[in-house]
Amino acid sequence: MKWYRFSDQQNQICYGRDLAADQTIQLLHGDPFSALTDSGQRVSVQKLLTPLDPRAILCIGLNYRQHVGEFGGELPKRPVLFMKNPSAVTGPGAPILLPASWLNPPQVDFETELAVVIGPAAKNVAVADALDYVLGYTIANDVSARRWQKEENGGQWVRGKSFDTFCPLGPALVTPDEIPDPQQLRLSCTLNGRTMQDDTTANMIFPVAELIAYLSQDTTLLPGTVILTGTPSGVGMARTPPLYLAPATPLP
Amino acid sequence: MKWYRFSDQQNQICYGRDLAADQTIQLLHGDPFSALTDSGQRVSVQKLLTPLDPRAILCIGLNYRQHVGEFGGELPKRPVLFMKNPSAVTGPGAPILLPASWLNPPQVDFETELAVVIGPAAKNVAVADALDYVLGYTIANDVSARRWQKEENGGQWVRGKSFDTFCPLGPALVTPDEIPDPQQLRLSCTLNGRTMQDDTTANMIFPVAELIAYLSQDTTLLPGTVILTGTPSGVGMARTPPLYLAPATPLP
Repeated sequence: MKWYRFSDQQNQICYGRDLAADQTIQLLHGDPFSALTDSGQRVSVQKLLTPLDPRAILCIGLNYRQHVGEFGGELPKRPVLFMKNPSAVTGPGAPILLPASWLNPPQVDFETELAVVIGPAAKNVAVADALDYVLGYTIANDVSARRWQKEENGGQWVRGKSFDTFCPLGPALVTPDEIPDPQQLRLSCTLNGRTMQDDTTANMIFPVAELIAYLSQDTTLLPGTVILTGTPSGVGMARTPPLYLAPATPLP
Repeated sequence: MKWYRFSDQQNQICYGRDLAADQTIQLLHGDPFSALTDSGQRVSVQKLLTPLDPRAILCIGLNYRQHVGEFGGELPKRPVLFMKNPSAVTGPGAPILLPASWLNPPQVDFETELAVVIGPAAKNVAVADALDYVLGYTIANDVSARRWQKEENGGQWVRGKSFDTFCPLGPALVTPDEIPDPQQLRLSCTLNGRTMQDDTTANMIFPVAELIAYLSQDTTLLPGTVILTGTPSGVGMARTPPLYLAPATPLP
């Protein structure tokens, strides 16, 4: 199933499937962490939301070979984990806000990523069992203010990764029965109509099952944890000259 | 008020104040994010809990002059932000679990810290208003596996800071009316009866109000966000020889 979270005309938060072009949707009852069941009713979507409010956002850096290459570094021996503040999450189609400190400039960059949502709590799981803990897959952008990521926070990435709206997420969540192999997914990113990133998850260094198993060692992945699995090549910082997000409208 | 969260004899999660030596407590009704009111009833505490399940844990590194000095570095120009996974939180008095990877060894260290809990959502707040967003103060330990923090995660600290039980928190939450100046608090850490850290928050480089204002720039601090404000000197890694946590019982 591919489901959505949305607000209806009464501003109630609902779940639905089969989103139509006229913005009607098949209403689902229940909760995605227990069960979603058909209501037999179609309703109008007022606004699509992120599929969930993440309990935590775990992010993997440098997980595509070509992306590592565009920075000239060595392949990591194990996954590189960092986090984003869940307050950075924003809904599909919402604008990305350049931090007021942008005059530095903040060098705001895009990073399209496959996002994995954890269902049941996972701890010390084996690679062979890891995908059993996936509630579903969605898409995210690990928006990054490179100046903050690199220079202004003592080498720790979280600040430059956590400004408000720096984690567009969703809208659709696709359940694992529809994605038997998460390493056969194409993902791309367009900026003003131009394709900036276009790759397949087959090129991940550490595939999804290995990431879940690794991250769960001695660590509980709580229900609703979102794992951003790393970005392919094509980010703005690695271009010549670098290409960063600019205000959509000129500043006064 | 100084309040506690606890489970009662029926395993219900409750709030209370005036904890007595006989483990009875004055039961409070309501929720700390709206209002806690006296029930007029005393009940027995089965188990003290953390004061809350944090929405996010924001941590400040290198915020005491002497602690920066014990690593021989320069004073930071601005706060250094990193995060811990909220799944690392553990209740008062609970054991700290050495990660199974301890044979590396993981070099598990202690870092006592003043913890600040955010009440109303805070964004772009001024230093002068920042303490208005504090729900209360408690104590935490930013337990850190130094080997993971330094070497095994590409320089990002989160992995070494986020193993399960790596964030003891509480038990008491003290409301701001009882702490007019959070820069006049003493904090200490004992290990097997020996004092390892003993300092005052007067020695913070960036005081609490400045931290809240800084962290809230372009970033929403959600209700229930916990800020760990940095640790004073005396940590195990900076000792000669280094002193790390050992298993309480010999391994088989």
